[in-house]
Amino acid sequence: MPDKQSFPIIQVIGYKNSGKTTMMNRLIRYASDQGLRTASLKHHGHSDSLEPMHSGTDSFQHHESGAFLTGVEGGGSLQLEFGKGLEVSLRQLINIYENFSPNLLLVEGYKREVYPKILMARTNEDFELVHEIANIRAVVCWEKDMESSIDVPVFHIETIEDHLGELIYLCKEV
Amino acid sequence: MPDKQSFPIIQVIGYKNSGKTTMMNRLIRYASDQGLRTASLKHHGHSDSLEPMHSGTDSFQHHESGAFLTGVEGGGSLQLEFGKGLEVSLRQLINIYENFSPNLLLVEGYKREVYPKILMARTNEDFELVHEIANIRAVVCWEKDMESSIDVPVFHIETIEDHLGELIYLCKEV
Repeated sequence: MPDKQSFPIIQVIGYKNSGKTTMMNRLIRYASDQGLRTASLKHHGHSDSLEPMHSGTDSFQHHESGAFLTGVEGGGSLQLEFGKGLEVSLRQLINIYENFSPNLLLVEGYKREVYPKILMARTNEDFELVHEIANIRAVVCWEKDMESSIDVPVFHIETIEDHLGELIYLCKEV
Repeated sequence: MPDKQSFPIIQVIGYKNSGKTTMMNRLIRYASDQGLRTASLKHHGHSDSLEPMHSGTDSFQHHESGAFLTGVEGGGSLQLEFGKGLEVSLRQLINIYENFSPNLLLVEGYKREVYPKILMARTNEDFELVHEIANIRAVVCWEKDMESSIDVPVFHIETIEDHLGELIYLCKEV
């Protein structure tokens, strides 16, 4: 498998309720509107399993029968589900995405990973992550007085809609 | 991408209500119980789209925002969904499955494809598919008088539970 993907990856990280989900959707919409084939990936940060995709469907039955991986394809859609016990790295996930030739992958979470990141900082404490986490290219803060001495561009949540292209540009490296 | 997968593929085909789904689950259970890493794929044979994986979830929002591919990973599970308009061949799907090193892939549908097949024949009319479809290795019939002159092993649905290993063996080719 390749160790280097052919598309830029941008991670959106931050603590719970820091606005990661909204930011993901803003970036997805902006990039898609620019004509980029945009993919997303979210880390489900709970130790419990995901809710099964289709309780009661054939795929669900296949899992119950013992399949470790099930898929259903048709009508222009494809759904794949990997059952419990999967151990997969972000690198492996990216290799899977590579099959579908995205122009951009937006990732929510996985903050210990190495890709360019946007940090969502609701509080001053959140802001401290900028010193702990690798490869933060931009910070989106909720408080006016957060524009500090750090060497990373800081944006304010209220006006972020005007800076989405800049955020993507700051993170873009292939 | 490789043109030849490293694992056997078995297709289960037949008309509606011929018992494909039950047969899929029997084969998945049998193979899994044998210790095989068993994957499944079902062709959704309707022209309408699949029901969205998680209406109301973040993944669903990402699709609404324009992402062509969304994923959520955590707690040992992974769910991937490809939005509307995807055109993907069985060959491409198999290449994706290859990333996860299955020992066996059971496929429901895609009867025009080339892989070894089990034909489910509820009626004598169904049985005629054996002359139209490539690479049928076994027929599972519902009527006693179906054991005909064809050159393919025929099994009866009532006793199929005792012949699952044989069915897999007949279809196995990598």
